Amino acid sequence: MKLKRTHNCGELRSENIGETVTLNGWVGSCRDHGGVTFIDLYDRWGLTQIVFDPEYSQETHKIAHTLRGQYVVAVKGDVKPRPEGMANPNIETGEVDVYVSEFELLNSSKTPPFDILHAGSVHAETKLKYRYLDLRSPEMQQRLIFRARATHMIRNFFMDNEFVEIETPILGRATPEGARDYLVPSRVNQGKFYALPQSPQLYKQSLMVSGFDRYFQIARCFRDEDLRAERQPEFTQVDLEMSFVSSDDVITLLEKLFVKLMKEMKDIDIKIPMTSITYQDAMLKYGSDAPDLRFGFEITDITDVFQNTGFGVFKNAVKNGGCIRAINLKGYSKQLSRKDLDELTPFVKPMRGKGVAWIRMNEEGPQSPIIKFFSEAEAENLYKMMDAEAGDVIILLADTEKIVSQCLAAIRGRFAKKFDLIKENDFAFTWVVDFPLFEADDDGNPTPTHHPFTSPKPEDMHLLDGSKEDLLKIKSDAYDIVLNGSEIGGGSIRIHDHKVQEKIFRILGIDEEEAKEKFGFLLDALQYGAPPHGGVALGLDRVIMILLGTDAIRDVIAFPKTQKATCLMTDAPGTVDEEQLDELALEISLFDDEEDKDDD
Amino acid sequence: MKLKRTHNCGELRSENIGETVTLNGWVGSCRDHGGVTFIDLYDRWGLTQIVFDPEYSQETHKIAHTLRGQYVVAVKGDVKPRPEGMANPNIETGEVDVYVSEFELLNSSKTPPFDILHAGSVHAETKLKYRYLDLRSPEMQQRLIFRARATHMIRNFFMDNEFVEIETPILGRATPEGARDYLVPSRVNQGKFYALPQSPQLYKQSLMVSGFDRYFQIARCFRDEDLRAERQPEFTQVDLEMSFVSSDDVITLLEKLFVKLMKEMKDIDIKIPMTSITYQDAMLKYGSDAPDLRFGFEITDITDVFQNTGFGVFKNAVKNGGCIRAINLKGYSKQLSRKDLDELTPFVKPMRGKGVAWIRMNEEGPQSPIIKFFSEAEAENLYKMMDAEAGDVIILLADTEKIVSQCLAAIRGRFAKKFDLIKENDFAFTWVVDFPLFEADDDGNPTPTHHPFTSPKPEDMHLLDGSKEDLLKIKSDAYDIVLNGSEIGGGSIRIHDHKVQEKIFRILGIDEEEAKEKFGFLLDALQYGAPPHGGVALGLDRVIMILLGTDAIRDVIAFPKTQKATCLMTDAPGTVDEEQLDELALEISLFDDEEDKDDD
Repeated sequence: MKLKRTHNCGELRSENIGETVTLNGWVGSCRDHGGVTFIDLYDRWGLTQIVFDPEYSQETHKIAHTLRGQYVVAVKGDVKPRPEGMANPNIETGEVDVYVSEFELLNSSKTPPFDILHAGSVHAETKLKYRYLDLRSPEMQQRLIFRARATHMIRNFFMDNEFVEIETPILGRATPEGARDYLVPSRVNQGKFYALPQSPQLYKQSLMVSGFDRYFQIARCFRDEDLRAERQPEFTQVDLEMSFVSSDDVITLLEKLFVKLMKEMKDIDIKIPMTSITYQDAMLKYGSDAPDLRFGFEITDITDVFQNTGFGVFKNAVKNGGCIRAINLKGYSKQLSRKDLDELTPFVKPMRGKGVAWIRMNEEGPQSPIIKFFSEAEAENLYKMMDAEAGDVIILLADTEKIVSQCLAAIRGRFAKKFDLIKENDFAFTWVVDFPLFEADDDGNPTPTHHPFTSPKPEDMHLLDGSKEDLLKIKSDAYDIVLNGSEIGGGSIRIHDHKVQEKIFRILGIDEEEAKEKFGFLLDALQYGAPPHGGVALGLDRVIMILLGTDAIRDVIAFPKTQKATCLMTDAPGTVDEEQLDELALEISLFDDEEDKDDD
Repeated sequence: MKLKRTHNCGELRSENIGETVTLNGWVGSCRDHGGVTFIDLYDRWGLTQIVFDPEYSQETHKIAHTLRGQYVVAVKGDVKPRPEGMANPNIETGEVDVYVSEFELLNSSKTPPFDILHAGSVHAETKLKYRYLDLRSPEMQQRLIFRARATHMIRNFFMDNEFVEIETPILGRATPEGARDYLVPSRVNQGKFYALPQSPQLYKQSLMVSGFDRYFQIARCFRDEDLRAERQPEFTQVDLEMSFVSSDDVITLLEKLFVKLMKEMKDIDIKIPMTSITYQDAMLKYGSDAPDLRFGFEITDITDVFQNTGFGVFKNAVKNGGCIRAINLKGYSKQLSRKDLDELTPFVKPMRGKGVAWIRMNEEGPQSPIIKFFSEAEAENLYKMMDAEAGDVIILLADTEKIVSQCLAAIRGRFAKKFDLIKENDFAFTWVVDFPLFEADDDGNPTPTHHPFTSPKPEDMHLLDGSKEDLLKIKSDAYDIVLNGSEIGGGSIRIHDHKVQEKIFRILGIDEEEAKEKFGFLLDALQYGAPPHGGVALGLDRVIMILLGTDAIRDVIAFPKTQKATCLMTDAPGTVDEEQLDELALEISLFDDEEDKDDD
């Protein structure tokens, strides 16, 4: 490299006119006007129009014709004002041109497989295979730069609040947290395996026992799940833990973090304290423990109205312990066609919904295929409860609570989109609290709603010695934070009393030996002066995704995996030598039958 | 928790006298004086003496007697001045006492397996098993807090210099870099494996192709090596890469980083530009490519003096293409006993040194078992070359260059220690440059000195088409940074021309198919407008270790592994269920014979 840049491609302004500058960058578009060649030279910081004028330098002008898109070049030249009326107000360097006097070709480029600057419609797989080119687009660059800035802001916040960032191991020990661990066979200890951490939970708790008091880490975590669109095998967690705190302290701190983040990264002032909703209310009103509060359409339980109904569908739901719930699409009747309403039943089918009823509140009275089955009192009570007026449409579902919730939550979202109720840069935070400590599994046995280190609320502690029914009534000292209908984090006050922790393990059917095998050191640690402590883990990828207003997690990760957990750029995972497996004392035992393989 | 702290345990000063405060912390030592109990209450920030005085509060005084070391307590009380003459100037809170009026026991503690505050002589394995207690010692806490601060300072430096921190995958693809990859079997793609990265090398180069221009990452890296004391299976690297730069740019930036780091973390001004030494000179003068410049004892090659010697040992070395080199322990004759000199031969044995000769320069003339074999001219020339005067001791070795270098490097260090030449907080940085691009392997074939993406120096580029001998003459555009005799980082300008990269692969005997299989995407990427680029990776753990003046890497890592790559606290790696292995299509095939197992 002979011509080292004096400026980047986004830097020159009219103040620089008259200077001789050197730029390095990539060739964007080339245009020829009257024997003069104009090239957009770009880099991470922007683009500058460079001009190859034969009257200025015949030698470099000749070269200009050999340049193609994505060539890497260095140019030296004079900054001149653009001719009268030719300034481009859309770009920051739009007032100047650089007239090239010296030129150096730094690298050529084959024709890229897609137009980097206009890759919107390019197949996702092609972009992932050529990720290094996709990442050259200003859009992707700005996303990753935004992520880096936001992450640094978060770090500064914790450093300013006397947190200590501590790196915990990636080569850890398996913990059963509901999802599968990635395993790493050990060569030095053949037949044994490390596990990649699903979270640094046990380490951060032990750091509290160590007295670090305030720990955080931007931590890579791993889950070998069957992948959904928003999940990646590895993800990044803002992980923190504090000693001598109650849940209010953790929540207050996190709110301050989000005030700062939203202000610095989006210039938006959010209100604190944030709203808070109990798990029970969230499930009832929004059908979800991650309610989207950017729009209304709250759910109302109308089961009571139909306790003694003659209408078969509702009657069955009540009889089977289910419920009947409804949404009022207030004032939207005119914007809803019959087709819109009829489409709801097939829409809820994947969620096991059997059907969706509706009542259109016309000026001339309610219209619906089902009201003829209602008694007059039922209809009247229903309209009253739903605050139904002319112009409204009531959407009703009857089924198990779970199915009704899921379906109505999805229907809320569907209509919010349809009626364009979700505004850009609208960010609705809420805390969800008062989770049950345990959920009943399919056999009715208690399993942890969060993880087995979550503390019961102090006032419910006595119920730990109660019946199965009592156990399911216990509320945990846990809190989730929800943004725009996505859970972006969750945490809890942990158990710091080893006797309580042992009791929880017993309740969960983890016997002493298993507890010792899996969490032995934590149980030990709790006996050597563990302080009261609690914390949070935030899903960084998801926070960034929401702040950027994109709905694909791969937009905020430099080198994401596909839904099949492969990397199309590096072709990972790959095959390995027999020799490597021998060193690990491993053999591959693939099924011959591909069918079997697909089953798990 | 009822009594939440108003202050931490390191915070109270005489200004606080008269205030009522609440402290939370651990019970350190307890002392009873005339019916009054004094307890050192401590946390991460320090310790405060709290006083249980029956005249002040009879109730809490009774409790004081039940407290044991490491109990976790909350106390509320009044800040009072210590009695005349009782202030403790050694601790920052030494002017005050807190007289306890309210008390809350937050947790009890079993008697710890060792004295946390005086654990110096405790067996390393015990401390690793109870790592959460070892980390409660102020010494370990301060080390990890120092590390966190230094890491944050490094991050700020890069952010201030427009670097973008980008997280690269942990689940990657195997790259052959001389050490073994840790493998992660894929469940979704059975029979295939991810590899944990030995470094983000390929990703960062592809980020330069993407135009990020300045990338950095504090990156976790993994190497499945047989472990030595300073190595851990996972380690942290300050990884960076820059576009449109030459090696000078990278070096200058790194020097600025170290100026800032040394000033902020150690309050030491280091001089830049740092010294720089060629690989060849380093090997000759210090016997090492990571020379310790905190002391002298440079090596001198004296082979020429003995070209035609009759002294058998030297003669053989010359005949076999070896060398004869020497160190002058200038002025140290009086401090060296005959035993000190005789011990050198057994000392170099593990380095395959066959013997060490010495010449003591006495006032009355040289004294040595070997000088009788030298001609007069040889002796005279030797003394002249070595600047030998009365009071000196010359140490001589003759062997292959490799063995001579290793042995004399070790001897340098041995005497530096013996003569106490290494001062605390003496930090000697140097760059080592002009490495050969290739080294000859045992069969004389070229292998990369660094990694196969390192660029040759531009002036040596033509030698790539030359003979094997030519190839070994090529110098690389690489640079290592050395601190106090440890390589703390290294980097290079990379190859950005795909034709050169392909040529290097050919030279290394990596055929087209293998190159495509292993580095296909990088070769592709280099063809789509790769800018000139280069970078560095620094070993963060080692840097922190040296700055803290400790010689154990586990002192700067929260949860280190043993030399057998196990974690004594969590007992990782562990066994896994048959079911998990089935999902991964793996079988363990352990040898029955333990002997065989130990062989690899």
